[in-house]
Amino acid sequence: MSKDTIATVLERRSVRKYNPAHVPTEDLTIILEAGRQAPSAHNGQPWHFVAVRDPEVKKALGIACNNQIWIPHADVVIAGVGLPRLSERWFAIDVTIALQNMVLAATGLGYGTCWIGAFDEAKAKQVLGIPEELRLVALTAIGIAAERPAAKPRKPFAEIFSLDRFGAAIDLERRAVRTVR
Amino acid sequence: MSKDTIATVLERRSVRKYNPAHVPTEDLTIILEAGRQAPSAHNGQPWHFVAVRDPEVKKALGIACNNQIWIPHADVVIAGVGLPRLSERWFAIDVTIALQNMVLAATGLGYGTCWIGAFDEAKAKQVLGIPEELRLVALTAIGIAAERPAAKPRKPFAEIFSLDRFGAAIDLERRAVRTVR
Repeated sequence: MSKDTIATVLERRSVRKYNPAHVPTEDLTIILEAGRQAPSAHNGQPWHFVAVRDPEVKKALGIACNNQIWIPHADVVIAGVGLPRLSERWFAIDVTIALQNMVLAATGLGYGTCWIGAFDEAKAKQVLGIPEELRLVALTAIGIAAERPAAKPRKPFAEIFSLDRFGAAIDLERRAVRTVR
Repeated sequence: MSKDTIATVLERRSVRKYNPAHVPTEDLTIILEAGRQAPSAHNGQPWHFVAVRDPEVKKALGIACNNQIWIPHADVVIAGVGLPRLSERWFAIDVTIALQNMVLAATGLGYGTCWIGAFDEAKAKQVLGIPEELRLVALTAIGIAAERPAAKPRKPFAEIFSLDRFGAAIDLERRAVRTVR
């Protein structure tokens, strides 16, 4: 049905070139459901998601996202909206978890995705008609990938992982990672 | 190797009861690698992760997390630390994406996990020796599940999804979701 979870996580890339073909509604439904089922603090679900498919709205959204002209080429752009009234402290984290569920579900189904963090919140909210009291946390593009970017370099294990206390070296089976890639 | 991505996303539950068995280091390595490969704004990777396995440290951490006494029973607790100096605007979102990658990798490998959002940041940072200028964003427990909680209720599709503009109804293939569950 969809790819192996570990392969999905390790093979995901940020895709900014898309074919014009559509994501079938059936697949989009599964992708959205992946977000709906995300965990949230006290199950507050302080979120709303706008799935943008209209070419004109996508174009205006791309302009509101610092003129990223590739954005309208993705079949769907999902805007992750937070409801601060429900969870002032956690809405941004909860929306992010749900969006990453969607990104990985889409990747598992074979689509390309790209997180979009650069945007003018006021302009993007206006384009999408998002009420004043809500927040736009982040967006992701989803579509049929027309490129397979190389993996970007990552910081080494020793720099970003500690055992038990910050800065204490962790002894890991690096072999394990080579096996799964 | 690991479960189907969609199944992983939809079958994940917040597990708070664990068996004392250990997560093999080889699997822990894969789980951490899943976080290391997460996307981040401008590939800034504004993160560090402390994998806590020492029983005494886990116990102190559980106390710092609002006395959640179940926490030390999980074999590993991963603390997601943000580096604001690298990315003031995005560190919390980037750490969250990486932690959700780890949660889903662990779920895909058959482990139980639970996001931990309730904690006293100052106390938890002290327990883990996290430098003053860094931020503790969130934590997750990982271990051998000793329970299979029922799915918590979720808000209906119509309440949390719009098409093109906030509040506009989206017509989805609900059948698709029933098929995959």
